Amino acid sequence: MIDQTLLPLTYRLHACATVDCLIEAIQMLRVRGAPALGAAGAYGVALSAIEHRKEPQELFYRHVVEDCARLARARPTAINLSWGVNEQRALLDHQEGPEETIERLVEHAKRIAETDVQNNKSIGRHGARLIEDGDSILTHCNAGALACVGYGTALGIVRWAHGEGKRIHVYVDETRPLCQGARLTAWELVREGIPATLVTDNMAGSLMRAGRVDKVVVGADRITAHGDVANKIGTYSLAVLAHHHGIPLIVAAPVSTIDFSCTALEDIPIEERDADEVRYCCGVQVAPSGVAAYNPAFDVTPASLVDSIVTENGIARPPDKRSLGALKP
Amino acid sequence: MIDQTLLPLTYRLHACATVDCLIEAIQMLRVRGAPALGAAGAYGVALSAIEHRKEPQELFYRHVVEDCARLARARPTAINLSWGVNEQRALLDHQEGPEETIERLVEHAKRIAETDVQNNKSIGRHGARLIEDGDSILTHCNAGALACVGYGTALGIVRWAHGEGKRIHVYVDETRPLCQGARLTAWELVREGIPATLVTDNMAGSLMRAGRVDKVVVGADRITAHGDVANKIGTYSLAVLAHHHGIPLIVAAPVSTIDFSCTALEDIPIEERDADEVRYCCGVQVAPSGVAAYNPAFDVTPASLVDSIVTENGIARPPDKRSLGALKP
Repeated sequence: MIDQTLLPLTYRLHACATVDCLIEAIQMLRVRGAPALGAAGAYGVALSAIEHRKEPQELFYRHVVEDCARLARARPTAINLSWGVNEQRALLDHQEGPEETIERLVEHAKRIAETDVQNNKSIGRHGARLIEDGDSILTHCNAGALACVGYGTALGIVRWAHGEGKRIHVYVDETRPLCQGARLTAWELVREGIPATLVTDNMAGSLMRAGRVDKVVVGADRITAHGDVANKIGTYSLAVLAHHHGIPLIVAAPVSTIDFSCTALEDIPIEERDADEVRYCCGVQVAPSGVAAYNPAFDVTPASLVDSIVTENGIARPPDKRSLGALKP
Repeated sequence: MIDQTLLPLTYRLHACATVDCLIEAIQMLRVRGAPALGAAGAYGVALSAIEHRKEPQELFYRHVVEDCARLARARPTAINLSWGVNEQRALLDHQEGPEETIERLVEHAKRIAETDVQNNKSIGRHGARLIEDGDSILTHCNAGALACVGYGTALGIVRWAHGEGKRIHVYVDETRPLCQGARLTAWELVREGIPATLVTDNMAGSLMRAGRVDKVVVGADRITAHGDVANKIGTYSLAVLAHHHGIPLIVAAPVSTIDFSCTALEDIPIEERDADEVRYCCGVQVAPSGVAAYNPAFDVTPASLVDSIVTENGIARPPDKRSLGALKP
């Protein structure tokens, strides 16, 4: 994987040969983004099988199952992580030996990764229908190639629209505390030559009031069966601001991000991270040591503030139980 | 003055013996905050007179008048800077010699500074009537003692309410790009022992939705005759969010911040600062070098989103031409 904590100043690959190494990478956000976590979870189970290949069959099976549980709870909010793990978990067969299991898990992990890129391109293709020539698009955090195996969800739509020749411009929210917008989204857009302007998170309202934002396009970490969207902290503020200014909020995510078993947005677990992420910025202290800080990594936007949810299987617009249900594979 | 660029890690006084030094300090934000800029402008004119005291009377007068113009335009948005300069400019008399002029200017600058502290205490006293026991208050940027000669405007209300024994808690927006909330407001509140929690700017909506914010209290850099409020970038986003959640937005400022000659919010000049302030955070690079960035230092909130404007002469609620006119000295 690309170690995303080092971008944009350093591009370095980070190899994980053990489940422990991968869990550390997930928790430290070396790999992040809901779809990327789906693939990471799937590869993690394969890695576990390789780690335990020399063990007797019964022990092997028990250890891989235990690793599935550890991997699935490495981070709580993005449903894709446990989805990727569970996809593999379902393939485990206690009557099967390590070598066949490894082969099946590695192959399925590859398939999940390949499908992710295909899905993102489908998301891009569907979503680009909502983007008009000349649009100025505001995005938050990073729902780009880095957040996925490739191509991106929200940035997949941007890439597809740009590829179609639509003249678009992207405002990139820096997305404190970890600046995934400034560090990752800006990096992707500069590399692709897509016109982009970096702003601080608190500028969104002012840009909207000035008529400089036509669409808000973001990713998602978990979507309820009714279309409520958990995503990076700050998405809800953007949703209210967009609603106030009559600007559509478009959410881009693979169907694996929809948690059809979750019907109440209060049921989505919200990860709270170390308060030092707020007291520091990219390693430098910005606040007095003694001050308390609050650091929820995500917030939840009710479906009523979402214009459309774009998946690889089509668009739910407006998003609700019926329109989302129709996208179920 | 306290060099505010070094806080919260270093507390260092910064002395200015020349107008050039003071203009540098104003532009680099060593001294900042609308009321503090009013006093700085007034002291700046006195400093100019001292610098030119040895010159022949006619040249002395011309140079001080020129310095008045340079000081007034050092930063464009806060009206208090030019107000402080113009207060002194009105005292200049080309028939008067340097020594008498210096004496009058120094004395008047001192009076402006003393009045500022008194005014802030009056703002605190009036504004605290709007704060209830148990309130959780969200504030943005720094409208505290550091932004004024002392005590503070928005934080003056917080201080007075706390001093009255009301149990209050303050959420402090870090206020990117220059983190005046994290660096300055958090520092003031920790020193005073007022319960405070630092958050990133994009958490405000989520806090409001969770019922964790009862009032939003901010300062102002310029207020139109109709009650539209120019303040630190991000204030407008907060105003929309507060409005959506039925939370009152309280603006605290001395009457000198009201520009009675300005009736259209589009007429307020908005300072645009160096884009590197967005690409960097407290000296560390957070974005790829090649990316464009936008950095307006202020935004404007229409009066319709403001619950009340608290001044030393009382409260305009709702703020409009009539209620603000009644506060005119």
